[in-house]
Amino acid sequence: MKKAAVIMGSDSDLPVVEKAFAVFEELGVPYEAHIFSAHRTPEEARKFAAEAAEKGFGAILCAAGMAAHLAGAIAAGTVLPVIGIPIKSGPLGGMDALLSTVMMPPGIPVATVAIDGAKNAAYLAAEIFALEDKQLSRRLLAAREKAAEQVLAKDAALQEKNK
Amino acid sequence: MKKAAVIMGSDSDLPVVEKAFAVFEELGVPYEAHIFSAHRTPEEARKFAAEAAEKGFGAILCAAGMAAHLAGAIAAGTVLPVIGIPIKSGPLGGMDALLSTVMMPPGIPVATVAIDGAKNAAYLAAEIFALEDKQLSRRLLAAREKAAEQVLAKDAALQEKNK
Amino acid sequence: MKKAAVIMGSDSDLPVVEKAFAVFEELGVPYEAHIFSAHRTPEEARKFAAEAAEKGFGAILCAAGMAAHLAGAIAAGTVLPVIGIPIKSGPLGGMDALLSTVMMPPGIPVATVAIDGAKNAAYLAAEIFALEDKQLSRRLLAAREKAAEQVLAKDAALQEKNK
Amino acid sequence: MKKAAVIMGSDSDLPVVEKAFAVFEELGVPYEAHIFSAHRTPEEARKFAAEAAEKGFGAILCAAGMAAHLAGAIAAGTVLPVIGIPIKSGPLGGMDALLSTVMMPPGIPVATVAIDGAKNAAYLAAEIFALEDKQLSRRLLAAREKAAEQVLAKDAALQEKNK
Amino acid sequence: MKKAAVIMGSDSDLPVVEKAFAVFEELGVPYEAHIFSAHRTPEEARKFAAEAAEKGFGAILCAAGMAAHLAGAIAAGTVLPVIGIPIKSGPLGGMDALLSTVMMPPGIPVATVAIDGAKNAAYLAAEIFALEDKQLSRRLLAAREKAAEQVLAKDAALQEKNK
Amino acid sequence: MKKAAVIMGSDSDLPVVEKAFAVFEELGVPYEAHIFSAHRTPEEARKFAAEAAEKGFGAILCAAGMAAHLAGAIAAGTVLPVIGIPIKSGPLGGMDALLSTVMMPPGIPVATVAIDGAKNAAYLAAEIFALEDKQLSRRLLAAREKAAEQVLAKDAALQEKNK
Amino acid sequence: MKKAAVIMGSDSDLPVVEKAFAVFEELGVPYEAHIFSAHRTPEEARKFAAEAAEKGFGAILCAAGMAAHLAGAIAAGTVLPVIGIPIKSGPLGGMDALLSTVMMPPGIPVATVAIDGAKNAAYLAAEIFALEDKQLSRRLLAAREKAAEQVLAKDAALQEKNK
Amino acid sequence: MKKAAVIMGSDSDLPVVEKAFAVFEELGVPYEAHIFSAHRTPEEARKFAAEAAEKGFGAILCAAGMAAHLAGAIAAGTVLPVIGIPIKSGPLGGMDALLSTVMMPPGIPVATVAIDGAKNAAYLAAEIFALEDKQLSRRLLAAREKAAEQVLAKDAALQEKNK
Repeated sequence: MKKAAVIMGSDSDLPVVEKAFAVFEELGVPYEAHIFSAHRTPEEARKFAAEAAEKGFGAILCAAGMAAHLAGAIAAGTVLPVIGIPIKSGPLGGMDALLSTVMMPPGIPVATVAIDGAKNAAYLAAEIFALEDKQLSRRLLAAREKAAEQVLAKDAALQEKNK
Repeated sequence: MKKAAVIMGSDSDLPVVEKAFAVFEELGVPYEAHIFSAHRTPEEARKFAAEAAEKGFGAILCAAGMAAHLAGAIAAGTVLPVIGIPIKSGPLGGMDALLSTVMMPPGIPVATVAIDGAKNAAYLAAEIFALEDKQLSRRLLAAREKAAEQVLAKDAALQEKNK
Repeated sequence: MKKAAVIMGSDSDLPVVEKAFAVFEELGVPYEAHIFSAHRTPEEARKFAAEAAEKGFGAILCAAGMAAHLAGAIAAGTVLPVIGIPIKSGPLGGMDALLSTVMMPPGIPVATVAIDGAKNAAYLAAEIFALEDKQLSRRLLAAREKAAEQVLAKDAALQEKNK
Repeated sequence: MKKAAVIMGSDSDLPVVEKAFAVFEELGVPYEAHIFSAHRTPEEARKFAAEAAEKGFGAILCAAGMAAHLAGAIAAGTVLPVIGIPIKSGPLGGMDALLSTVMMPPGIPVATVAIDGAKNAAYLAAEIFALEDKQLSRRLLAAREKAAEQVLAKDAALQEKNK
Repeated sequence: MKKAAVIMGSDSDLPVVEKAFAVFEELGVPYEAHIFSAHRTPEEARKFAAEAAEKGFGAILCAAGMAAHLAGAIAAGTVLPVIGIPIKSGPLGGMDALLSTVMMPPGIPVATVAIDGAKNAAYLAAEIFALEDKQLSRRLLAAREKAAEQVLAKDAALQEKNK
Repeated sequence: MKKAAVIMGSDSDLPVVEKAFAVFEELGVPYEAHIFSAHRTPEEARKFAAEAAEKGFGAILCAAGMAAHLAGAIAAGTVLPVIGIPIKSGPLGGMDALLSTVMMPPGIPVATVAIDGAKNAAYLAAEIFALEDKQLSRRLLAAREKAAEQVLAKDAALQEKNK
Repeated sequence: MKKAAVIMGSDSDLPVVEKAFAVFEELGVPYEAHIFSAHRTPEEARKFAAEAAEKGFGAILCAAGMAAHLAGAIAAGTVLPVIGIPIKSGPLGGMDALLSTVMMPPGIPVATVAIDGAKNAAYLAAEIFALEDKQLSRRLLAAREKAAEQVLAKDAALQEKNK
Repeated sequence: MKKAAVIMGSDSDLPVVEKAFAVFEELGVPYEAHIFSAHRTPEEARKFAAEAAEKGFGAILCAAGMAAHLAGAIAAGTVLPVIGIPIKSGPLGGMDALLSTVMMPPGIPVATVAIDGAKNAAYLAAEIFALEDKQLSRRLLAAREKAAEQVLAKDAALQEKNK
């Protein structure tokens, strides 16, 4: 199976990004995490993007806040799917990061998830990998079923309480 | 190769969505387009999502405007990668469609591109398919090179003009 | 009298939604509450909408946050009045939920109240039921009078204090 | 059957509001339209609200732009369901009208539809009246079916074209 | 000297509105405060506006949050200057109240100050009254001088500290 | 009677500002108009503010777009009432001008009207002058009555048309 | 004198960026313009930034729209002053470009001007160069005086017209 | 070397502005800080701007919140580079200050940094001074290298932890 890469622009993004790690671990998706900044370590970011395909990565998750250029900078250097996680940081609640991540010009796509949506970034990568991995596909379906069951259990508890 | 599906909520979205068709044709990616509405034909949308995997689709692009629920509704019914294209329509310039598409709850990811970003939705699907298709990967790299050359040619023309 | 249904997308919405319960209890409006998610349990949501009319419901309140599709998904499956309560959750203060709930396309209306406006959602359902229930209409008028008296009592207290 | 009232704050709102008239006529819902301004003719607005119930109205649609107070002012004077239509006018694209209409304080609900959403305001009123009118309910279901068929016909045309 | 009226829509606005009282007391401007709601006690609000001129008021400050209609409703009933104070309350940080207060249609002006800008509302009323009251004008100029001196004293303290 | 001053930051604001002239002429309020820029001719703006009171002005209307500092700059130099008119110009629809005009710090009020709200700026100045001018007060009331009659005439025309 | 560089992300930005050229020509500031894209030609952009100082540039203007990463990408590669011009393009009126340009993380500054503010970007570069060039400083002061005279001439024309 | 000036509109801005002091001290850039308000002490602000060039200042940093006019007011009085720091204060999270600072009219540039971006304002001034100061330029490059090393060290620590 291909690996997922998870890059964050700063270690202050770690509490959000760790939710992606948890999803990968739950689903058995191998991943590797890095702290690289589009602005402070552009060379390392560039090099990572350039070599990611041959290193066996199949998707690159990029988390950054404010004028969040990381996902776009990585996407400019690879044709692997790049998944952008806008991070809520600073005074604008992540709206700056969302627009900086999602409003990419034609030719360089970034698959953007919700602000602080690290979990969904991991699920998205897993959905991509599952195209060639029936077992992973089944684990994804099982996770959906489990989530549905949790909702229904909460509904049942509510019915019980309101009786 | 897997096929891409392109679903739009209304035929008024077609002028934007056709840009995705053009990219798929340029890259040689097979695709199938449909008009289904999350609200007006929810059953058809649900059925399409449920059967998409076994029909050989590998990614589903969903274009919708305003309270754009289409991508989320499709994503709720499949573990295939779903790519959301928020459409600019109505008085809010597409900001409503962007937020309705991208701010999905954990567990049901939608890979969101820019407002009216149909081209990038197609490139993203192609990047996903290219993980298992070296030739497509090479075509994607060639498209990047061509885009770069166009920028450099425009730069050269500007130098000529400003001489 | 017809019953009101109250559906919420997650049990985290309960502290807001309970304010609707309190209004229904104060006004003597029968109601039934459920936790169904447009994305995690779409089938249950769909089934609920399809059967709501024949089960004696006369209005369906739907509370959801972020890319809040619940009200629209329910509205797509019934011609009962659907009342949307955008929930404040996540980094955007409920603006995403408001736009996802209110900006519905022609043909599928959602009667949207304020962000976290669960009380008014219940009053609105009661106003609808009161069209055929003179006593409920009188209770609504009495609630208005009580609210007016509370304002006037506070005004009187302010006059006393500022003397 | 009860009548619907349609009040607009200015005759400049008429091109939008006439879409509600068309829906009422299609569905056979009796209605009466007025131009009253919350600010320029507050007394007439107040009087209309106070007498609406006994005059046989069952819902009041209110369309206004900018600092759109009309729906709230009417809602303050009746316990009939009041449906607010925020009108796009002025430099802010209707966002001012949306917030002025939907963010009502507890106790005085306004059922808000999309900016310029006159059609859905009429459908919502019809859904309310249909609670006590099986034939209207059937006409609403028929309108839904017709809308679905139109979507499917467009889909079929697209399949034909893309063959 | 004419009196100022201060109306607030809810006693929850009092902590902000009291800053206006303090300015009036500092400047020796007589004032009277009331709690009236445009929506819960529309009749009292209407009556207050209609009688304000003959009762000797020269300006009416109106503080309200969310879909803040109070200033507009009062302004509709008088040609006295009405000063609107948008209150920060609810999930949108007062932006809803600002737009609901300031975006008034032609003919019914509301002199709007900053969100939670109760102090400036009082200074503005005092500036209006000072047109016919030289002593008040001098007190306003003295307040400006005092504010300037405080800034310069803070600057001097900073110079001292940074030496 | 005191005069009104109307200052605009640029002659491109004239088409909006002329609506204030028309109101002043209709109401018989003397006024004087100037083009001064807070940034390009700060000295002239400063001088105008400093001398406005002794020159017999009773209110200063200031119209400016984008980072609209004109009203605040004038208000800093006088204790006369300053009325700010945010002008819609540039890419942000006047939201920048609105916030730059209305969000003033404590002590320096600007009475802000709607974006492009030149008419209401003039009505507001007239309301201020009318505190000491019974005839102007009557003309203001007459203008209100005329506006109400126009609304009612339009309503009557609508009734005629819909008969 | 040092030269200014002007980089734009696309030749569609040229109509805005040419306003900077005109300012440089008026002030006699040497400049060189390029079309480089942060995403399509990242290597050329990187190389330009790395060599800019030794090539005699003293400031780099960067114009880009949507998720505007160009200024930040250039700033990451040089300690020359980088001036960002957010371009209005796409559905969000340039707000996306403004936030993507100005909300830079600590350590990598971008001196941001108004949306489409190419003129001011050039004036800012000239102000920087004028620190070491008395004649340029005088030309800048002369431009300010000329702008002031134009305002005053327009004011004089208005006085003449209103006489 | 030229000095930097740092002006803030209020001593409440000091906790943010002190981050600029720290950068200047780290880089050995002489600076002088003042508290002047565009609205409360306009004369002092004006005088400071007019004399700044001859007093040896080479850049003026201006920090202000809400309707932040300080940077524009200073820029109107000098052709030195003026750097605007929008401060987050009040209910709008600094968006008002950002727009009031950055959306300047042609001819009077303000080099705007991020909301609360005091560090980058200082780095920008240092970059300007470094054009004529090789040692400062080297210190800036060293700061960049140090920042890069910190990122890489954090990345190394993450690798260690995830082993």
